[in-house]
Amino acid sequence: MDPSAAAPNGDVYQQSIKAHLKLRGKLSLSLKDDPDTKEKLSLFYTPGVAAVSRLIAEQPDKLNDYSWTNNLVAVVSDGSAVLGLGDIGPKAAMPVMEGKAMLFKHFADIDAVPIVLNAHSADQIVNAVKAIAPSFGAINLEDIAAPKCFEIEERLKDQLDIPVFHDDQHGTAVVVLAGLINAAKVVNKDLKRCRVVVVGAGAAGTAIIKLLNVYGVKQITALDSQGIIGPGRRGLSPEKRALLDLTRPVDHLGGLDRALDGADIFIGVSRPNLLNTEYIKLMNPRSIVFALANPQPEIEPDLAFRAGVAVLATGRSDYPNQVNNALAFPGIFRGALDNGVKRITDDHKLAAAGALAAMVKRPAAGRIIPSLFETSLVKTIAAVIK
Amino acid sequence: MDPSAAAPNGDVYQQSIKAHLKLRGKLSLSLKDDPDTKEKLSLFYTPGVAAVSRLIAEQPDKLNDYSWTNNLVAVVSDGSAVLGLGDIGPKAAMPVMEGKAMLFKHFADIDAVPIVLNAHSADQIVNAVKAIAPSFGAINLEDIAAPKCFEIEERLKDQLDIPVFHDDQHGTAVVVLAGLINAAKVVNKDLKRCRVVVVGAGAAGTAIIKLLNVYGVKQITALDSQGIIGPGRRGLSPEKRALLDLTRPVDHLGGLDRALDGADIFIGVSRPNLLNTEYIKLMNPRSIVFALANPQPEIEPDLAFRAGVAVLATGRSDYPNQVNNALAFPGIFRGALDNGVKRITDDHKLAAAGALAAMVKRPAAGRIIPSLFETSLVKTIAAVIK
Repeated sequence: MDPSAAAPNGDVYQQSIKAHLKLRGKLSLSLKDDPDTKEKLSLFYTPGVAAVSRLIAEQPDKLNDYSWTNNLVAVVSDGSAVLGLGDIGPKAAMPVMEGKAMLFKHFADIDAVPIVLNAHSADQIVNAVKAIAPSFGAINLEDIAAPKCFEIEERLKDQLDIPVFHDDQHGTAVVVLAGLINAAKVVNKDLKRCRVVVVGAGAAGTAIIKLLNVYGVKQITALDSQGIIGPGRRGLSPEKRALLDLTRPVDHLGGLDRALDGADIFIGVSRPNLLNTEYIKLMNPRSIVFALANPQPEIEPDLAFRAGVAVLATGRSDYPNQVNNALAFPGIFRGALDNGVKRITDDHKLAAAGALAAMVKRPAAGRIIPSLFETSLVKTIAAVIK
Repeated sequence: MDPSAAAPNGDVYQQSIKAHLKLRGKLSLSLKDDPDTKEKLSLFYTPGVAAVSRLIAEQPDKLNDYSWTNNLVAVVSDGSAVLGLGDIGPKAAMPVMEGKAMLFKHFADIDAVPIVLNAHSADQIVNAVKAIAPSFGAINLEDIAAPKCFEIEERLKDQLDIPVFHDDQHGTAVVVLAGLINAAKVVNKDLKRCRVVVVGAGAAGTAIIKLLNVYGVKQITALDSQGIIGPGRRGLSPEKRALLDLTRPVDHLGGLDRALDGADIFIGVSRPNLLNTEYIKLMNPRSIVFALANPQPEIEPDLAFRAGVAVLATGRSDYPNQVNNALAFPGIFRGALDNGVKRITDDHKLAAAGALAAMVKRPAAGRIIPSLFETSLVKTIAAVIK
């Protein structure tokens, strides 16, 4: 394997810096009409606009008919868990959020505004998002650290009348479930009866476990950096303790070797090179490995195949089966905005995963997930978010 | 005078509602490049964008070089004092703020995002704006009720490292001062020695008084709905009490008749038909009247001229001398963004008013203020904001 493909080489980084400096940002505003005459100024601004404001004052539900909010998402981050970079703060998070807004526009024709917050506690973030919420049609939470991301999303979902979706959690979970549905077909196993090991209990890992549980997977073992999350573990956070009800773990302490013994599926949202061939050999035959650490997966693909893995997915675009959130969130938001969905539920996520999986007509080891550039992608997912 | 011109007839309102419904909002997002290949996705999003984020994490001051924040203004309102409609709340304020964003883009090519706040107290509004501030290059406060608007602006100016400008105050004040500079030339009086009466002590009136004082006008009498704001008045708010130092009022209680007796200039930011010919006859010869109540001025223009007013300005586009904030704010923000100005000072406002006045080569009674559609407008003002 070409070692330069294992991690992005410096070129992409240098090129990215150059491209950003040249463009001076990736977004700009456009006008749907130009106020280039006194008449148009009177229509779009004073005095005419007063009539629109009066109308909405009387019927606030009509705002979306008269304002860009009907197609508008806030991409909100405090910069506390950005890519693999950690807590780099709001300003440094901005280029990533602008990139996310770019994906919203390009893939789903949704107007998205990056909002990076100088706010740190769950309370501060909830208050800031609640304050700006009337300006938007939906909220996409992004790159907010666990465990505060869980509380923030729950409180905002309860208190706002627009969809709130933490993509690092649910976007990932939807694509993982879609991939697993097809991977299970490829290896001819019943996904619900598979033994699944999830390594990493942050935002993504927790959401994957929750969605697999809702889907009907009965045997899930969760691990964090200290090993199996079981009832015997001391000092578990409330969020991790809550996983015990979903994972039905064997009551023992232990590491990855104990967890993988007899497992069918490994899902890693953890760190590079966590996995090796010895571990994989503990798994059941026709094993499925989703090694999603970015940019370097938990195991090099060639090593995984040499150890007998039947289906492999990674987060990388240079291998087949890329688990990429951009497969899910554009369609989920497109559907929520178009269909007036106020709350994105577990049923929506299951439906999105099912629709995504069904786009692959004949699943094969090298093709369990559709390509990001498939044209019907957004429309297909949007249709089930209703 | 055609009575249908006194106030906008129903047509402009009905047409505005229709136009908004058809467009479904006036703004949309655009991309400076398209992430339509894997390579571009790697440059503008992961993994490449991580390098840009790392760079900004180390040098936060570089954000503007790599992000759209260098050309980005938030148009922020809580909807508490929208046009003549009062406290209609954030959702009903949105069409007005979208209109304002439209003006920013059309006149100054500035990207502007309307942010309407579900926040009410000064504390809540300050906290919300501070939270979102890293997302923007400047803050335009809009249609926030007095007196809280004063405290909000002062606190934000002190605590943020980007320009904060309450346009209802300072945009109006700049255009009024520009108009007065030329009106005084037309009537051949020394503006600094004129006796000025300002009726209305809200956001605009207060800012006008402050800027005239800084300019050097010595004799200003301020009135609110209860009459002259003098030291003898009981129950004055702290904000109105502060005006006593700027207005050097005669120490008597009284109304508009007392105030106008011997005055050279009337400035109204109050209510329709406050003024009549009897009042105007109390003023000195060659009187100047700025009747800025919207959409109906303090006096009908034909009445004013019949009573002997030498120079008249209104807020309306169907008469000469329209005092319109859009003459000032696009250039002020353009200059602040381009020249790295972090705080818009009184000197900036004086310079902007001077530049605006100087654009009118030969001031005349019917031409003391340049037209909104004059092409060099934004560039001329931006050049003095440095």
